[in-house]
Amino acid sequence: MTEPVITDSSPIPAPANRVPTPTAPAPDILRCAYMEIVVTDLAASREFYVDVLGLVVTEEDETTIYLRSFEEFIHHNLVLRQGPVAAVAAFSYRVRTPEDLDKAVAFYTELGCRVERNAAGYTKGIGDSVRVEDPLGFPYEFFHDVDHVERLAWAYHLQTPGCLVRLDHFNQVTPDVPRAVAYMEDLGFRVTEDIQDEAGTTYAAWMRRKPTVHDTAMTGGDGPRMHHVAFATHEKHNIIAICDKLGALRKSDTIERGPGRHGVSNAFYLYLRDPDGHRVEIYTQDYYTGDPDNPVVTWDVHDNQRRDWWGNPVVPSWYTDASLVLDLDGQPQPLVARTDDSEMEVTVGADGFSYTRKEDGDFKLGHTL
Amino acid sequence: MTEPVITDSSPIPAPANRVPTPTAPAPDILRCAYMEIVVTDLAASREFYVDVLGLVVTEEDETTIYLRSFEEFIHHNLVLRQGPVAAVAAFSYRVRTPEDLDKAVAFYTELGCRVERNAAGYTKGIGDSVRVEDPLGFPYEFFHDVDHVERLAWAYHLQTPGCLVRLDHFNQVTPDVPRAVAYMEDLGFRVTEDIQDEAGTTYAAWMRRKPTVHDTAMTGGDGPRMHHVAFATHEKHNIIAICDKLGALRKSDTIERGPGRHGVSNAFYLYLRDPDGHRVEIYTQDYYTGDPDNPVVTWDVHDNQRRDWWGNPVVPSWYTDASLVLDLDGQPQPLVARTDDSEMEVTVGADGFSYTRKEDGDFKLGHTL
Amino acid sequence: MTEPVITDSSPIPAPANRVPTPTAPAPDILRCAYMEIVVTDLAASREFYVDVLGLVVTEEDETTIYLRSFEEFIHHNLVLRQGPVAAVAAFSYRVRTPEDLDKAVAFYTELGCRVERNAAGYTKGIGDSVRVEDPLGFPYEFFHDVDHVERLAWAYHLQTPGCLVRLDHFNQVTPDVPRAVAYMEDLGFRVTEDIQDEAGTTYAAWMRRKPTVHDTAMTGGDGPRMHHVAFATHEKHNIIAICDKLGALRKSDTIERGPGRHGVSNAFYLYLRDPDGHRVEIYTQDYYTGDPDNPVVTWDVHDNQRRDWWGNPVVPSWYTDASLVLDLDGQPQPLVARTDDSEMEVTVGADGFSYTRKEDGDFKLGHTL
Amino acid sequence: MTEPVITDSSPIPAPANRVPTPTAPAPDILRCAYMEIVVTDLAASREFYVDVLGLVVTEEDETTIYLRSFEEFIHHNLVLRQGPVAAVAAFSYRVRTPEDLDKAVAFYTELGCRVERNAAGYTKGIGDSVRVEDPLGFPYEFFHDVDHVERLAWAYHLQTPGCLVRLDHFNQVTPDVPRAVAYMEDLGFRVTEDIQDEAGTTYAAWMRRKPTVHDTAMTGGDGPRMHHVAFATHEKHNIIAICDKLGALRKSDTIERGPGRHGVSNAFYLYLRDPDGHRVEIYTQDYYTGDPDNPVVTWDVHDNQRRDWWGNPVVPSWYTDASLVLDLDGQPQPLVARTDDSEMEVTVGADGFSYTRKEDGDFKLGHTL
Repeated sequence: MTEPVITDSSPIPAPANRVPTPTAPAPDILRCAYMEIVVTDLAASREFYVDVLGLVVTEEDETTIYLRSFEEFIHHNLVLRQGPVAAVAAFSYRVRTPEDLDKAVAFYTELGCRVERNAAGYTKGIGDSVRVEDPLGFPYEFFHDVDHVERLAWAYHLQTPGCLVRLDHFNQVTPDVPRAVAYMEDLGFRVTEDIQDEAGTTYAAWMRRKPTVHDTAMTGGDGPRMHHVAFATHEKHNIIAICDKLGALRKSDTIERGPGRHGVSNAFYLYLRDPDGHRVEIYTQDYYTGDPDNPVVTWDVHDNQRRDWWGNPVVPSWYTDASLVLDLDGQPQPLVARTDDSEMEVTVGADGFSYTRKEDGDFKLGHTL
Repeated sequence: MTEPVITDSSPIPAPANRVPTPTAPAPDILRCAYMEIVVTDLAASREFYVDVLGLVVTEEDETTIYLRSFEEFIHHNLVLRQGPVAAVAAFSYRVRTPEDLDKAVAFYTELGCRVERNAAGYTKGIGDSVRVEDPLGFPYEFFHDVDHVERLAWAYHLQTPGCLVRLDHFNQVTPDVPRAVAYMEDLGFRVTEDIQDEAGTTYAAWMRRKPTVHDTAMTGGDGPRMHHVAFATHEKHNIIAICDKLGALRKSDTIERGPGRHGVSNAFYLYLRDPDGHRVEIYTQDYYTGDPDNPVVTWDVHDNQRRDWWGNPVVPSWYTDASLVLDLDGQPQPLVARTDDSEMEVTVGADGFSYTRKEDGDFKLGHTL
Repeated sequence: MTEPVITDSSPIPAPANRVPTPTAPAPDILRCAYMEIVVTDLAASREFYVDVLGLVVTEEDETTIYLRSFEEFIHHNLVLRQGPVAAVAAFSYRVRTPEDLDKAVAFYTELGCRVERNAAGYTKGIGDSVRVEDPLGFPYEFFHDVDHVERLAWAYHLQTPGCLVRLDHFNQVTPDVPRAVAYMEDLGFRVTEDIQDEAGTTYAAWMRRKPTVHDTAMTGGDGPRMHHVAFATHEKHNIIAICDKLGALRKSDTIERGPGRHGVSNAFYLYLRDPDGHRVEIYTQDYYTGDPDNPVVTWDVHDNQRRDWWGNPVVPSWYTDASLVLDLDGQPQPLVARTDDSEMEVTVGADGFSYTRKEDGDFKLGHTL
Repeated sequence: MTEPVITDSSPIPAPANRVPTPTAPAPDILRCAYMEIVVTDLAASREFYVDVLGLVVTEEDETTIYLRSFEEFIHHNLVLRQGPVAAVAAFSYRVRTPEDLDKAVAFYTELGCRVERNAAGYTKGIGDSVRVEDPLGFPYEFFHDVDHVERLAWAYHLQTPGCLVRLDHFNQVTPDVPRAVAYMEDLGFRVTEDIQDEAGTTYAAWMRRKPTVHDTAMTGGDGPRMHHVAFATHEKHNIIAICDKLGALRKSDTIERGPGRHGVSNAFYLYLRDPDGHRVEIYTQDYYTGDPDNPVVTWDVHDNQRRDWWGNPVVPSWYTDASLVLDLDGQPQPLVARTDDSEMEVTVGADGFSYTRKEDGDFKLGHTL
């Protein structure tokens, strides 16, 4: 049978144009912690994230809503901020100690990035924080101090059939995946899975700090853009319940892709689009990756089960659409075009192909759509 | 919100060209009981139905395999018979008493149909049986006597993650749905749900004897053909397990459509194609319909949630492909073309449309594919 | 391995003291339809059935609440009526036609029972109804006319994690189970499973009209009393969600027994006690029983897996406690003591025993508690 | 409502008799990795762990079987070794680097413990390893080098309904829980939850390295003994499937306690006893604990929902029974009696009590059993 290739080390060589490795040590990142997004209609977004998805409101005012998942004990996992242009203002990671903020400053300063620090924090409930425009153009944040709030894990009387229990990961769009991976490895991330072709082109890579398949992934495309933010449920029926509820609300067109089973990560998934088009994944049941020699899984870009284990087609918008990201002045970052091959083009349509069984020869999916 | 229309009686008027109602009373049908299908490669079919789907082999020989589901106590729910042309040899219903066979003979004789009776049964484990070429051209069978076999409901040590527990229903393709419905109502079936348009064209109808949404459905198209045979699981994760297993076996291209949630029937579903292309549905969790005034649900053909509650598109093959059916001599029945509108054409593509919310105006799905 | 005995006909011979079979034909009963219970604190009961269990309020006033499950289309499945003594006022069955009410009157009149008829119905939303004090002392009701209400099967936005979708069955306590069964068979019920011992004592019997394991069961004990009323969920996790919610509400002492898997019926179950001590079962996934020769399953009373397939002990209160039932004047029926052996006494404690594997010899459960 | 107390630091003060903190740094432990147990009938144990529970055989010979879970990539999670006395030979942890073995040697040597090192490993598939008799008398192992084997996460065609996907944790019985906790904190573990009473007696504590609720727990009782080893499933229905299968195999007496929902850890659980009486937990869905300030949850020993969120009673054997552990010569360690109060005695029976709602006053569970 056709299977992905398993290796014990990073399968993606650092490219010639790599971001230099700083001599300053990287901050010790615990996990992806929250995303701050700008939405153009706060009431519509509140309906989507609170009334439909059931995220918990920690705090809110006229311009901003702070949301968390049911098993979270820090102030928020998602900030919705009213603004003129839908975009992402911060991908925020929690670090192990307050001193890791000094390391973040040194690390990014050495990289020549724009670095800012705010002892009062950039969002409510968060203390001393560092924000940078990273070498790929993304607004990354690091913090340690945070207000604790009630962990609602036992609050079953408040939970809905589609209960979101954890923030699981981010997913970023960037034109040069190997360059992005080399930088992220310097930052302390490790690759768990990736998608390549026989010529060595890398289409996407998944990287983790906490021992799941990822805290963030790098998806090849014009960037910097945000592909999606993902929340976890406990079981698969919770994800189905979200679909059923969207049908009942006559909002099924919010569903962009899925539900399905990923090949990469082995997780059960669903992709939604919020009222501004920001993509949200609902995700459950990937696997433990915390050992330093955790086997890396490399998928062939032509393997039709890599993105959906059941071979269901990926809709084109999933490949093409993503959210703008903001610089530290709040202005959208300009996009750099991807020059490597596009995953959509090499797998779908007249010239692309994918197979279910490699030994059967090439199966042109484009012929059947 | 847009909702289907609920009525307390059959929403499909009998057409002018209806099959005359016999004066002879209809046999008292209990339920759809088994389907006999001709397969061209018995070993390949055995692998699909036994090794992959886990149906239980009651008995088998060199040309024929008798299969049942885990909660069944009659000899079989599916007969695979080796033959030269993939087709359906019988849609078989169990009747309440031996005397109902006499009624079946009289009923179909009065309709001018070809009727045969075999006291020894047409398949192993089944006694006295009547087979007819019904007014729509389908090979229908009726029987009462049957060998009892062990009901494996409690045999959890033999069950797989995707355990099939019951035969749920048949689905037939016929060109004139209202004509088919009128005949089936004469045979004692009742409509539970249907799909129409505002002009009164009927695209499909679901009809039951046992108190589920259907024992069989009539789907508009060139016919007579068999659209699918459906088995039930207990829970939704059982259906997902079948998909996961097909991926692991690198047979994901067996999945034609789904999994998803039906609008019609409210059931969770998956469609597979067996090695001959016979379509099998895996199905769970419709609702009780046994009261005589059970509300009939009429869906608008343009409602994008009617066939998939989450609005996921129906693949064209699901509309166009179906299995031939055999006459009582074992020859394929010629097809009669549908002259009413085609559901696929009125909902997909340049001229068709469907909507998620009717009040939003027409949403052309064709534009987005 | 030890297994229950399977037979094709009723395994319980009619006793010498049987209720005579009427010459009048029995009404054609469709299904158990609703129970009317008297509660002593309507607000407390509302909290339990509506806020905790999530039943849908069809209608309510100061003294009465009319509740239904999510897939129901008739006015109610449960009536809570404020009154001085907690008891059951009616076990109500729906019949196929209005004429079946005449049959019910004739049937019970011939039996010498007290019979009343109210063309306006005894509860809101129900029309012409017959109520009787049946030969076992139970207040049975029969009706056909009923108001239709919205079937909320598709209303996923209103459903909770522990969503109750159907009324499944009643369970009655009566001293002489074979006598009760013979009368119920005359009324058109069929036995699907029962519990006996080698001496022929019958401890309980399950009987059905709709093709599930039961519409009601007869449990041996001092009677007439109501043992429980049962609602169905779609999946097992829905039942677990109810337990989790009760824990979160610090009402876990509402859980009397379970969750677990029944041997009898093969269903997954949970027993709760409402604020008055009325017992409610939550139940899912029994099997189809609609064929006239459906195999009857007889369990040995000493089989430790008969009531819980996993061998978890039955708490004594489950055997001893039950609700009073009212006569047609609203007065509690006096109890008749069971004279046959008690299931609790022959299976638990110093003199009782049960086994996991019969071939191992007797295993005294009493020794291990 | 009654709720456990949440704090941000270890709630258990180090006792006066604490094990001294070594000056040598602790090894960097990744996770609990495997347990080696001695079984008296290897064939019977193989049937239990392989045929019933479905663990994967990596390798086996006449005296030893090496088993792993479906998502594991190291050689084994459980070693069954034939021997004369049922006992535990090793609680084995994986460390981050080969150098951590040197740290383990120094750490335990300074503690005055017996320390051995075997460059060839003590079990197949494992390289250089350190084994110690720790200050509590337990045989602890540390290793880094290990053979990689296929991670069967995607091998759905091999998975059973009750598929075990990960080793989750150990649980140890020791007389003085605060003394055990102080030592384990020195070893780098952190407390996530515990059970205390108002007088400050600690009954049990849960401690983690990987970011789940625990890699091991310390349960108060005569020790050193092994309370249980726990494997994880993905979903709750997987655990129910194990119970159902045990019923079908007429091995339901293997079930000691559960299934149920823990208060502590919030996980869904089941306890089994293997043919030698070694206790195995099946466990799913606790929460992320990886932040250094993860809130610690302290449960009142009298809270009836602490060990079962639904208030189902803990069977006495669960408190009293546990497995012997071996010293490095393979001889059973003698037991030291607990002198602190016993959790069973303070919560069950004539003098113990527990409550569902603290404000209701004490509820004597002993009265109701």
